[in-house]
Amino acid sequence: MTRQTKHKRQKHRKYSLPAAGSSPGLIYIDENTLIPVIKIYKYNAGHYEVAEIEDFKEVQSRVADKDFTYWVEIKGFKSMKMFDILNVDFNVNKLVLEDITSPYQRPKLEEYDDYDFAVSRMLRFDADKDLDNIQVSFILRDHVLFTFQEHYEDCLEPIRGRLKIGKGNIRIGGSSYLMYALMDIIVDKYFEILGEWGEDLNEIEDRLFDRPDKTVMYDTQMIKKNIIGIRRVVWPERDKLNDILRSDSPRITAQTKLYIKDAYDHCIQIIDIVESLKEIAITNIDMYLSVISNRMNEIMKVLTIMSSIFIPLTFIAGIYGMNFAIEDPVTGKKLPQNMPELYQEHGYLYTMIVMGAIAVAQIIYFWRKGWFK
Amino acid sequence: MTRQTKHKRQKHRKYSLPAAGSSPGLIYIDENTLIPVIKIYKYNAGHYEVAEIEDFKEVQSRVADKDFTYWVEIKGFKSMKMFDILNVDFNVNKLVLEDITSPYQRPKLEEYDDYDFAVSRMLRFDADKDLDNIQVSFILRDHVLFTFQEHYEDCLEPIRGRLKIGKGNIRIGGSSYLMYALMDIIVDKYFEILGEWGEDLNEIEDRLFDRPDKTVMYDTQMIKKNIIGIRRVVWPERDKLNDILRSDSPRITAQTKLYIKDAYDHCIQIIDIVESLKEIAITNIDMYLSVISNRMNEIMKVLTIMSSIFIPLTFIAGIYGMNFAIEDPVTGKKLPQNMPELYQEHGYLYTMIVMGAIAVAQIIYFWRKGWFK
Amino acid sequence: MTRQTKHKRQKHRKYSLPAAGSSPGLIYIDENTLIPVIKIYKYNAGHYEVAEIEDFKEVQSRVADKDFTYWVEIKGFKSMKMFDILNVDFNVNKLVLEDITSPYQRPKLEEYDDYDFAVSRMLRFDADKDLDNIQVSFILRDHVLFTFQEHYEDCLEPIRGRLKIGKGNIRIGGSSYLMYALMDIIVDKYFEILGEWGEDLNEIEDRLFDRPDKTVMYDTQMIKKNIIGIRRVVWPERDKLNDILRSDSPRITAQTKLYIKDAYDHCIQIIDIVESLKEIAITNIDMYLSVISNRMNEIMKVLTIMSSIFIPLTFIAGIYGMNFAIEDPVTGKKLPQNMPELYQEHGYLYTMIVMGAIAVAQIIYFWRKGWFK
Amino acid sequence: MTRQTKHKRQKHRKYSLPAAGSSPGLIYIDENTLIPVIKIYKYNAGHYEVAEIEDFKEVQSRVADKDFTYWVEIKGFKSMKMFDILNVDFNVNKLVLEDITSPYQRPKLEEYDDYDFAVSRMLRFDADKDLDNIQVSFILRDHVLFTFQEHYEDCLEPIRGRLKIGKGNIRIGGSSYLMYALMDIIVDKYFEILGEWGEDLNEIEDRLFDRPDKTVMYDTQMIKKNIIGIRRVVWPERDKLNDILRSDSPRITAQTKLYIKDAYDHCIQIIDIVESLKEIAITNIDMYLSVISNRMNEIMKVLTIMSSIFIPLTFIAGIYGMNFAIEDPVTGKKLPQNMPELYQEHGYLYTMIVMGAIAVAQIIYFWRKGWFK
Amino acid sequence: MTRQTKHKRQKHRKYSLPAAGSSPGLIYIDENTLIPVIKIYKYNAGHYEVAEIEDFKEVQSRVADKDFTYWVEIKGFKSMKMFDILNVDFNVNKLVLEDITSPYQRPKLEEYDDYDFAVSRMLRFDADKDLDNIQVSFILRDHVLFTFQEHYEDCLEPIRGRLKIGKGNIRIGGSSYLMYALMDIIVDKYFEILGEWGEDLNEIEDRLFDRPDKTVMYDTQMIKKNIIGIRRVVWPERDKLNDILRSDSPRITAQTKLYIKDAYDHCIQIIDIVESLKEIAITNIDMYLSVISNRMNEIMKVLTIMSSIFIPLTFIAGIYGMNFAIEDPVTGKKLPQNMPELYQEHGYLYTMIVMGAIAVAQIIYFWRKGWFK
Repeated sequence: MTRQTKHKRQKHRKYSLPAAGSSPGLIYIDENTLIPVIKIYKYNAGHYEVAEIEDFKEVQSRVADKDFTYWVEIKGFKSMKMFDILNVDFNVNKLVLEDITSPYQRPKLEEYDDYDFAVSRMLRFDADKDLDNIQVSFILRDHVLFTFQEHYEDCLEPIRGRLKIGKGNIRIGGSSYLMYALMDIIVDKYFEILGEWGEDLNEIEDRLFDRPDKTVMYDTQMIKKNIIGIRRVVWPERDKLNDILRSDSPRITAQTKLYIKDAYDHCIQIIDIVESLKEIAITNIDMYLSVISNRMNEIMKVLTIMSSIFIPLTFIAGIYGMNFAIEDPVTGKKLPQNMPELYQEHGYLYTMIVMGAIAVAQIIYFWRKGWFK
Repeated sequence: MTRQTKHKRQKHRKYSLPAAGSSPGLIYIDENTLIPVIKIYKYNAGHYEVAEIEDFKEVQSRVADKDFTYWVEIKGFKSMKMFDILNVDFNVNKLVLEDITSPYQRPKLEEYDDYDFAVSRMLRFDADKDLDNIQVSFILRDHVLFTFQEHYEDCLEPIRGRLKIGKGNIRIGGSSYLMYALMDIIVDKYFEILGEWGEDLNEIEDRLFDRPDKTVMYDTQMIKKNIIGIRRVVWPERDKLNDILRSDSPRITAQTKLYIKDAYDHCIQIIDIVESLKEIAITNIDMYLSVISNRMNEIMKVLTIMSSIFIPLTFIAGIYGMNFAIEDPVTGKKLPQNMPELYQEHGYLYTMIVMGAIAVAQIIYFWRKGWFK
Repeated sequence: MTRQTKHKRQKHRKYSLPAAGSSPGLIYIDENTLIPVIKIYKYNAGHYEVAEIEDFKEVQSRVADKDFTYWVEIKGFKSMKMFDILNVDFNVNKLVLEDITSPYQRPKLEEYDDYDFAVSRMLRFDADKDLDNIQVSFILRDHVLFTFQEHYEDCLEPIRGRLKIGKGNIRIGGSSYLMYALMDIIVDKYFEILGEWGEDLNEIEDRLFDRPDKTVMYDTQMIKKNIIGIRRVVWPERDKLNDILRSDSPRITAQTKLYIKDAYDHCIQIIDIVESLKEIAITNIDMYLSVISNRMNEIMKVLTIMSSIFIPLTFIAGIYGMNFAIEDPVTGKKLPQNMPELYQEHGYLYTMIVMGAIAVAQIIYFWRKGWFK
Repeated sequence: MTRQTKHKRQKHRKYSLPAAGSSPGLIYIDENTLIPVIKIYKYNAGHYEVAEIEDFKEVQSRVADKDFTYWVEIKGFKSMKMFDILNVDFNVNKLVLEDITSPYQRPKLEEYDDYDFAVSRMLRFDADKDLDNIQVSFILRDHVLFTFQEHYEDCLEPIRGRLKIGKGNIRIGGSSYLMYALMDIIVDKYFEILGEWGEDLNEIEDRLFDRPDKTVMYDTQMIKKNIIGIRRVVWPERDKLNDILRSDSPRITAQTKLYIKDAYDHCIQIIDIVESLKEIAITNIDMYLSVISNRMNEIMKVLTIMSSIFIPLTFIAGIYGMNFAIEDPVTGKKLPQNMPELYQEHGYLYTMIVMGAIAVAQIIYFWRKGWFK
Repeated sequence: MTRQTKHKRQKHRKYSLPAAGSSPGLIYIDENTLIPVIKIYKYNAGHYEVAEIEDFKEVQSRVADKDFTYWVEIKGFKSMKMFDILNVDFNVNKLVLEDITSPYQRPKLEEYDDYDFAVSRMLRFDADKDLDNIQVSFILRDHVLFTFQEHYEDCLEPIRGRLKIGKGNIRIGGSSYLMYALMDIIVDKYFEILGEWGEDLNEIEDRLFDRPDKTVMYDTQMIKKNIIGIRRVVWPERDKLNDILRSDSPRITAQTKLYIKDAYDHCIQIIDIVESLKEIAITNIDMYLSVISNRMNEIMKVLTIMSSIFIPLTFIAGIYGMNFAIEDPVTGKKLPQNMPELYQEHGYLYTMIVMGAIAVAQIIYFWRKGWFK
């Protein structure tokens, strides 16, 4: 098992566990939590500006002008004060804040009186080509969209670019369209990841045909595990998008829903691809097991042919290697019945001919059985 | 793995990926996209003419006369202008146009105010007997049916023939009946493809019984993969036809729905066949694995019988090949207890009889165990 | 693979394919289609007569008297005129007529204004003990039941007998009760077929315990295939009966529905049996594979025991068969260290004792490992 | 396959088949049917008496007094007259009577105007420890409960005891409570049966760990078959109890429904246990197959180690057993290059050392590969 | 099978069986049942006290003051009087009391007029690291929550701590909030248990890669069994929480439902983790079986290479060990055709060269086949 496999073993991730029995709605902030970086994007059809703010207290005043749409982007959670302001000034339920900061939430939509709360899961390959599964939380208010991420890196840059350029609907669609655009890019990212796995599976299938070794099994199982992991994200994502479609929240416009329908279709296509890839992975594993069985058959055939041909011959050679004496060396008594063959003129020749005949008979037998094919 | 298998390995198809983060409703036209060829079929019960037009701008005026039904057939997408006209003059939503030009859509029906949008998937064997999975999009308006295909080849010729001859309902059923006729021929084509695979599976089953080799496994797995692929098309096709049945779009007539019900029944029969073929493929694989196991058993039996019979005999021959001396050649000392058998009058004969008895005993033993059957 | 298996291989049936692109509602009559044989059973509580008619034109006048119930039994389809009369005089939709003549329809019920159309699938073993899957179509009108079969043979004789004798409800239940009676006998026939397979599976299970050979695998797989085939008939049959139960067609009387409920219960019992038989088939296959594995273990044990015991002994015999000389025959030089064992008084005896000890030690070792059990 | 397995093979039961085409509602009474034994239990809160009656004609008069509840217990069906009376005097539908006498009905509830008809399946180990699956039918009327069993033995004795003693609700709950009590004891009996199988599976698991042999496979498969059989009873039993819960039959009191809810919970627990046992059986089979594979590995390791070590050594011994002559015995010509090793002073010693070195090298090699672990 | 596995075999638990036919609502108290320990927690926003009471009779008077919320915690059931009081004074249905005392109930909610009855299943590792599955029953009344546990140990200490400190909602949420808090901590505990199993599986996966032995199979199967066991708890737990959410019991406040929604989300996450762990366990088993197959291949390769190389060589050595004589020792007759090779000057050398060539040819052959990789 020392062979190098292309797909390295997954880092075993621990399931993060909320401490059992802690008070619900408790926001738990770890030592390693990052200091929040807060940016406010203020825009409408004709205007666009970004500001990074230090003090979360400022937010409420900065998002007051209803002629604009605001994206309050929060990365890093190490500020109890920030969550207090969200709870008190923005009236966000404590359970929602717990969900934002807790490590693993399934994609979901929850509607409240003043705002809607949604969760997406952003998948990214990190520097080591490991798959990161990062939570992005959304709080959607009338003119404002809050987004929350635990880390600084993300894959949302294209949206920021489109916001800046102002092409398409992005600046005029309001906060719900912005939320759609962010969710959509997150879902589209899944295509890329699945595409890589699809190519890996194809590459493995090629290997399976050309030079199958045990890495085929390991690599396929690793990808299968990843695919099973992504299913846990995709199915609830589909449900979430469906919930948004059927939601009667006043903050989600009819026009946005048209686009959400499009994202929903993408999500169903992703589910299709996920299921296909899973089937391909299983097929690869089945093929590999059949390859192993076939190879074992081949190995055993070689052994059996070699053994079956030479074992009887060696036995005959052994017979004539026996030392039964034709004359007792001590008494000089003649023993003419002991191995008289040894003293025939053509004894050796006849023996060799018999051996050859046995070998040929066996080869014909195995040939007929198709073992040489 | 160098053996030639009848079913060549599938060309690995890439999953086409929309660039994550691009603006929704963006129509992406590749360099390799074909120049559009546009034909307008104008017909009613007593009239039939076809015209190929150059400038898409003409379409609107040409389809104005409401006494006729029109089929605007568009093959090839390399004309931004065409899509602009569809968007502006025909009021077709940009997301719909994106769906038409994007590489993979599941079969679906979407109803809009002025038109209905539908997608079918046309399956065809190409010149290399590979399975092509081609998208055909429909935009159904009151008197006009637009169809969109990326390539010039298709399997719709029989419909054009029926249109020309004017037999049956085809000229009097309106645009929705034409859409049905096109969808129906696409679905009927699946029967042919499944029929070919069914025969391939039967041929493989025959091979499995007569001369099973490892191509059985590969060929069956290839067909199983194809069948799994076609399931991804058939189930949503069924849902689409059901959606059309339940649709209350004014453009789909009650009479057409009667025919759609028929196509829906066909689709369910196709699902039945797909599931049956999948079961047969799985059964073939199981049988093959059992064949391998049986063959291994046979190989091992040969080896074990040969070894078990000759190994003890060879040992006995080895015993009497030992050189224990009955007289020390140096000192001349007599050693009468060393291998006195060698100096018996019938030592050799008795040894041969013992060997024969051992061999016979073993053969009887293996016979009783049923290893010779 | 030359062994005779009890269950012969299925004749590979082709999936009959409607020609893609043909006009819907087209009745396709093959050269081999049989000439129709038409019988009219005219009966009520006190009256019963059968007439075979030549000209289908007569039917309408013959079924006019509403004091009687009529069963118009049609076997063989080679008469375009007949279908024209059904279409024009009896107002039967062309799509229905296409379904009647086309080779494979799932069991279903379709309600129309004047009549109900239903399909059952009759299963019969033919002369070669192959399973035939024959379509029986029903057109139910107020006082008339039309039945359609492609071939002359069927399993409906008991119903004709009951009609003649007039026992029970059969003569007073009207046309819908007659349809029920025919559907019920078709479903009851399934029990017989499943019963045969059940016994075959039991017989195979006995063989599995007493003398498992590879026919076990083939026979079980053949039955499993048949069972999977029958599932494709039984589930839609259940749906059809349920549709009849819930139908509000005026032609299906409340009393008939009571009986249909009974047939529906039978159908569910059949599904139960089908699923059980499938499980038993799978269990048999699993057991067989385990039997193969066990047998391989046994074979390998024999080989290993024989080899392990005799290989070291043969080696020892080989040692003392070496020709290291105690005296150089050429120079006469003494070489007292070369194989002095050979010149010991009890060398041979001691060697045999050592060999015996090694053999006994190994036998004890294998005994302890439980390999002799 | 001659080894004794603890769980004997199931008697193959035939699926009893109603004769296809017989008239529905026909009561078929076999020669072997038992003569009916009819008991009437008449009770209320303060009164209890049992009478065995001869003539079924008496029943109607005996159950007339509405101050009492009556249990008419019928065992054995050989009386056409009895069924006629039930049909005519008690207005019981013929189809119901057919269900009562026919060999296999799933648990179900059917509501009629005057009565409710229900079926339970009583499971019992018979004298040979085979599982009997016996039908108990109920006809529930206002003050009367009829029960029907084909055989005389049952497991309902505790209910008769409770009726006699009059403890709890049994005497005051009316006929529907009595039906509940009987159904509940039948369901509770399943727990006992599952408990036995659970212990058998545990015992097999112990055997699997301590001394796995092929009986493990057979015994587990036998239990799995039984479990699959019981699933066919338990799921419809659950549906039946649910139907009773939702029934609006006036004969089933609200209080009884409270108890039925309890029986329904038991039934769900039984389903839980059944599914668990099935999973355990499957796990046992998987483990057993892995045990076989491991054992094969062990056997092969022994063979390979023994062969690999001794085969080269035997070859070397064979080399020095060759008879290449250092002097032509006929001509006396010296051949000093033929096997000079044989005439070295320490030739034998060196050979033995080389052999030992080869053996040690191989042992080290196999040790490193972990084959001795 | 004597190797020590890390995960010891589960103690086989008996399925506790209610005696079939006993009266429903019967409370069965075993000899080993514990004496009840009863504590009353009386609290509101500003007050907190605990009292252990001896006589259950006191409860009613102690929980009378409606300004407080009460938690009546009962551990141990050995008091018939207690259950009588609950039945008579607190109007608790006998069937509920039976459920509380009976050994196994699925998680469920039952609503009654005066109270709601709920069951949770508390999972704990006991001293031996075995998983205990303990029932906690709840009776929720307006100001009072009764909880029932069979044993004294539990995992509810954190809730008692929060009650004492009075942080968060716990003291002001009323009895339904307390029930939520207890249910929530029980569910959160599942995370911990799954976390341990997840780590065990990771550890097994590491072992699978580094030094796979048969404990991998046993340990994984043990965990899989446990996971299958926990599924039986988690799915009904989810249904129960959903029932509470949809309940219109006046005792469950809208605010509590908000929290129950949170626990419901946790429960779905647990189901996600359970299903993932099950998939990982299955993958581990598949990988292990593939490891065994690969290892078998390796073993067989070693055997075949060794045998195939040396068997022909040994045969050649055997040939030249034959004793065909070049001169009849008795008659002195010359036999020059018998093995003249033995008397060639370089016979020995040439033989060795041939042997070497055969060995090299085979090594090249096996190398080409890739058997040395």
